[in-house]
Amino acid sequence: MEAEHNSNITPTTVGVIGLGLIGGSMALDLKTRGFASKVLGVEKDPVSAEAALRLGLVDEVVTLEKCVLASEITVVAVPVGTAVKMVCQILDTFKENGWKDKIVMDVCSTKEQINLSTHYHPCRTQYVSTHPMAGTEYSGPWAAMPNLFDGRACIFANPEESSPRALGRVEQLYDTLNMRPTYMNASAHDVHTAYVSHISHVTSFALALTVLDKEKDEKHIFDLASGGFSSTVRLAKSSAAMWVPILSQNRDNVLQVIDTYIDKMQQFRQAISEYDTDRIESLIKEANRIKKIIR
Amino acid sequence: MEAEHNSNITPTTVGVIGLGLIGGSMALDLKTRGFASKVLGVEKDPVSAEAALRLGLVDEVVTLEKCVLASEITVVAVPVGTAVKMVCQILDTFKENGWKDKIVMDVCSTKEQINLSTHYHPCRTQYVSTHPMAGTEYSGPWAAMPNLFDGRACIFANPEESSPRALGRVEQLYDTLNMRPTYMNASAHDVHTAYVSHISHVTSFALALTVLDKEKDEKHIFDLASGGFSSTVRLAKSSAAMWVPILSQNRDNVLQVIDTYIDKMQQFRQAISEYDTDRIESLIKEANRIKKIIR
Repeated sequence: MEAEHNSNITPTTVGVIGLGLIGGSMALDLKTRGFASKVLGVEKDPVSAEAALRLGLVDEVVTLEKCVLASEITVVAVPVGTAVKMVCQILDTFKENGWKDKIVMDVCSTKEQINLSTHYHPCRTQYVSTHPMAGTEYSGPWAAMPNLFDGRACIFANPEESSPRALGRVEQLYDTLNMRPTYMNASAHDVHTAYVSHISHVTSFALALTVLDKEKDEKHIFDLASGGFSSTVRLAKSSAAMWVPILSQNRDNVLQVIDTYIDKMQQFRQAISEYDTDRIESLIKEANRIKKIIR
Repeated sequence: MEAEHNSNITPTTVGVIGLGLIGGSMALDLKTRGFASKVLGVEKDPVSAEAALRLGLVDEVVTLEKCVLASEITVVAVPVGTAVKMVCQILDTFKENGWKDKIVMDVCSTKEQINLSTHYHPCRTQYVSTHPMAGTEYSGPWAAMPNLFDGRACIFANPEESSPRALGRVEQLYDTLNMRPTYMNASAHDVHTAYVSHISHVTSFALALTVLDKEKDEKHIFDLASGGFSSTVRLAKSSAAMWVPILSQNRDNVLQVIDTYIDKMQQFRQAISEYDTDRIESLIKEANRIKKIIR
């Protein structure tokens, strides 16, 4: 499954639908690193479209139809609710026009629904389902940056449903972005990301709500917030447009993790309430095991 | 209350009890920036004591008695449970020896109990109760670093109970560390820090426990963890020695914040469970208000 090295790759036309943090950053690196000879963008918000052009993220902003027509690989980088419909719509276009060599890929954070929706499509093999595990709490074309993906993991969900050729091309694309490929089925993906990504967003949102609720005099938060608080609450800046569909589409897994999490909070609550310092200590020492895993 | 500029200050002897992250970092900057001509350290753990000497954090490691005898200002930088007793013990020594010009200060993260315990001490005016809001998730002398305090807030709790002279000297000390002084009463301190510091540690510990509980195959966490997860779980590396006494001493405030926090998690749970995307969206948008406050 190893991608060829970039020096052997002929630059191609890539289309990016959705010029936000992920789409915009991808457009940038694919062009500067020589994977794409030309990057076409599709962006329904006129301000974002103009910004993407001024920031030089894409060569041109075009219609969805023109983008799919002109691109070898179309990257769907819109929120997952819209992406589900859009990938199917693009596969329909492939079918209607008999385009056998074109590829569509998505970069969404939940994979089960999009894979279910495309599973029986006659052009399913031309679709590659991926999730590059990179990002920041910021959004929009102004948040796009070079080198965002370097060294991070990229998940390929249900890779066996894509043609080896389509899969290989998308592997080359991610190799250009210096991502580490990981392969798993879509439902396993959604379970794991609920644990290592979705829950930490929910806990950050809840932390922000808690503090905002109580600290009516916002100056105090600003004055007293140490680096630790800022780091824990950072993800609470993440956009609703992205996270509402993720939390909805991954509902069952997210609910399960929230329940486990609330149970852990209740264990802390009880230990603190009962002045049970031995129990607080053992909970903290158990949590400290994360040291061995994260950095 | 503004501190004089350092150039006017005659270097003095400072004693630091507890050569961990905070004590060690303070020792380092006070010496290199010329506030201290000499820094004496007290450290009951022999390995930490030897490390502090080798790392050049202090000039000498001595007994508590010798430290208090030789220092103008003694900084108590041990976990808050021990600190409560130690500050009183040092004030006793001041009284027994008739030392009117010596000062003791602490740097603990909870302030109400330590201020209650010292309130009626005949030498109370020689004690300055402070909380420099700086730190990392690491501990021990090997975690000490220069410039740790620069630009952060330092809280002076119940400053009116210290003599103007003692308070002025400690203000000079923190001015050397480039900290922004903030003055409040001890109980207000404990309420605010429960919100902006203590709760974010509990939520990080709970997040680490949740993920460790579920992801038995630890490789997945490592592979899939994006920057967001690492940042949210970072504080879960914090030491039990420091956090057990903080959570115990600030029990009532921490319990109240935990209850508010669990309620916010339940609101997310319910909205996700009922596919109530409008409600998820409004919760996230409300949480996004933290943007205006943090950075």
